[in-house]
Amino acid sequence: MSRFWSPVVHQLTPYVPGEQPKVNRLIKLNTNENPYGPSPRVLEAIRAAASDDLRLYPDPGCTSLREAIARHHQMNPAQVFVGNSSDEVLGIVFQALLKQPQPLLMPDISYGFYPVYCGLFGIEHRKVPLDEELAIRVEDYRQPCGAVILANPNAPTGHLLSLSAIRTLLEDHPDQPVVIDEAYIDFGGESAVTLVNEYPNLLVVHTLSKSRSLAGLRVGYAIGQTGLVEGLERVKNSFNAYPLDRLALAGATASFEDDEYFRQTCAAVIRSRETLREGLQDLGFEVLPSAANFVFARHPARDAAGLAAGLRSEGIIVRHFRQPRIEQYLRISIGTDEECGSLLTALAGLLRA
Amino acid sequence: MSRFWSPVVHQLTPYVPGEQPKVNRLIKLNTNENPYGPSPRVLEAIRAAASDDLRLYPDPGCTSLREAIARHHQMNPAQVFVGNSSDEVLGIVFQALLKQPQPLLMPDISYGFYPVYCGLFGIEHRKVPLDEELAIRVEDYRQPCGAVILANPNAPTGHLLSLSAIRTLLEDHPDQPVVIDEAYIDFGGESAVTLVNEYPNLLVVHTLSKSRSLAGLRVGYAIGQTGLVEGLERVKNSFNAYPLDRLALAGATASFEDDEYFRQTCAAVIRSRETLREGLQDLGFEVLPSAANFVFARHPARDAAGLAAGLRSEGIIVRHFRQPRIEQYLRISIGTDEECGSLLTALAGLLRA
Repeated sequence: MSRFWSPVVHQLTPYVPGEQPKVNRLIKLNTNENPYGPSPRVLEAIRAAASDDLRLYPDPGCTSLREAIARHHQMNPAQVFVGNSSDEVLGIVFQALLKQPQPLLMPDISYGFYPVYCGLFGIEHRKVPLDEELAIRVEDYRQPCGAVILANPNAPTGHLLSLSAIRTLLEDHPDQPVVIDEAYIDFGGESAVTLVNEYPNLLVVHTLSKSRSLAGLRVGYAIGQTGLVEGLERVKNSFNAYPLDRLALAGATASFEDDEYFRQTCAAVIRSRETLREGLQDLGFEVLPSAANFVFARHPARDAAGLAAGLRSEGIIVRHFRQPRIEQYLRISIGTDEECGSLLTALAGLLRA
Repeated sequence: MSRFWSPVVHQLTPYVPGEQPKVNRLIKLNTNENPYGPSPRVLEAIRAAASDDLRLYPDPGCTSLREAIARHHQMNPAQVFVGNSSDEVLGIVFQALLKQPQPLLMPDISYGFYPVYCGLFGIEHRKVPLDEELAIRVEDYRQPCGAVILANPNAPTGHLLSLSAIRTLLEDHPDQPVVIDEAYIDFGGESAVTLVNEYPNLLVVHTLSKSRSLAGLRVGYAIGQTGLVEGLERVKNSFNAYPLDRLALAGATASFEDDEYFRQTCAAVIRSRETLREGLQDLGFEVLPSAANFVFARHPARDAAGLAAGLRSEGIIVRHFRQPRIEQYLRISIGTDEECGSLLTALAGLLRA
């Protein structure tokens, strides 16, 4: 606390990210990182960029990266906005598009950062409850509002909306910006990027942290029609004109140039997810259908907080949210098959105890 | 333009950074980059960090880097806040400390990003004119206000305030946050970081872009008493919890571990500045005293915009601001001695023409 703070600071409830333990040798299944490293071409590109040119500012337009992203999605580079992680991109999206005279709609259970941005930027919002299966029902968003944001697949549930549901949402809100946060889309969903040219109100947000194994590089992006991207650029250039350093630009661009590696690692994660799901069900867990690189599961007879603590004492970290409706669930990131095997063994032991 | 923008976006006047030309072979003296590359230890540390660990999130607390910065300044790590460039740090400072019920004071001629932040965050501000020598006079800030920000040395003038003048400013405003932006302090000034433990209202902002030759890595920091740093952390964790990637953390930390290289390159830039100043004076330029890695100069008989255009056509870029009071000045970054020599030769030619 300090008497020198701006008034808004006193009211903030900052986001609390999942633990990043400093001890190695833990099995870390708590923050949805990819169990596989990035493409070797990413590492090469970064090493090549580690040169005396670091004395120079990076390209503020991030041209090469935006071109690589545009090629991947078969879009135009002017429809691509890039930033220092999808968190920063979202922060800019909240300022540039989601602060409207009417309240913003978001799911009651979703990425925990959304209401935090609202606190920082003074955005009135209304939470729309998930249905009884913890799924988003787009019909529930048919109400007056200034804008909509949701994650697809949703976090921490893993639940996926179909493209036709997204289309319904877009058509229900022709005069409002609709933001679809697709952090986990590459693990089994169909991206709404294909709808961008049809819907001027649609913005789709992606990250390189999950499916491209680059949580440590901090790169995210958004795709929408050029007017939306121009709004994001205006806010970005009123805050931080060069958010991507030369190394992040080089590494991220290289990631989009190795499509085969990307497809292989996503497929491996999906296979491991299905094996883990079966293993958890064999232990008596209820596992929500997931299209993400995590599963959301509860055991009918065991307290989730107790299970999380038990796993922790065996060197395995999973995520547990002390939050109404989901406090009996564990969110478990998909590790390697070996890591998932260790998790199942540890859980079997805890359930026997 | 888009009808989906938040209302504030329509009123923004984003910052326009100096040109980053895509053509090589230009002599680039327009954005105050260091003519020397970063320490070889920085490059080694980055190459070592280009590993599979990039799949993992970075340390959100940036502990090693904050410890290295604290050691350099003989402060406590809890007094250090780090961010993705000093632009991002300043953006957070404007939100966390400078949005007060009373207007913010800033020099009328200074870093052009300050009023841009005010536009984005809705901060009322009042500009205090520089004196006739284009110097900041701290006495002129004796007026009711909510906070003060200034750059020392100031940009684009290079003018340096003494520590005792900063002390006067701090004592004139015991109830207001006072932010000193020391982007250029290592080129000849005395840092106000030594006053932090005495003044709870003081925050000092630094960058690694200039004196540490790392404009391409995007790292900045602020030092103040822990209450101020806590306010910055709250805003940061309400916007982007991991702004520094693993490579930036590794490289920046290594920079603080090679003090000798840092001192040598700063000394070389200072020597080149003094040589350039004399060379410009020999050509008839008036050169303001500079404690930065640039000089601010005008020729009594030649139009600055014309000179800038003439230099450009000879492959040399300097910065010219179309702004009242300084439109007849050129801001020239200090290059290598060879680059400064080419500049002087080109200017001599233009003056003869």
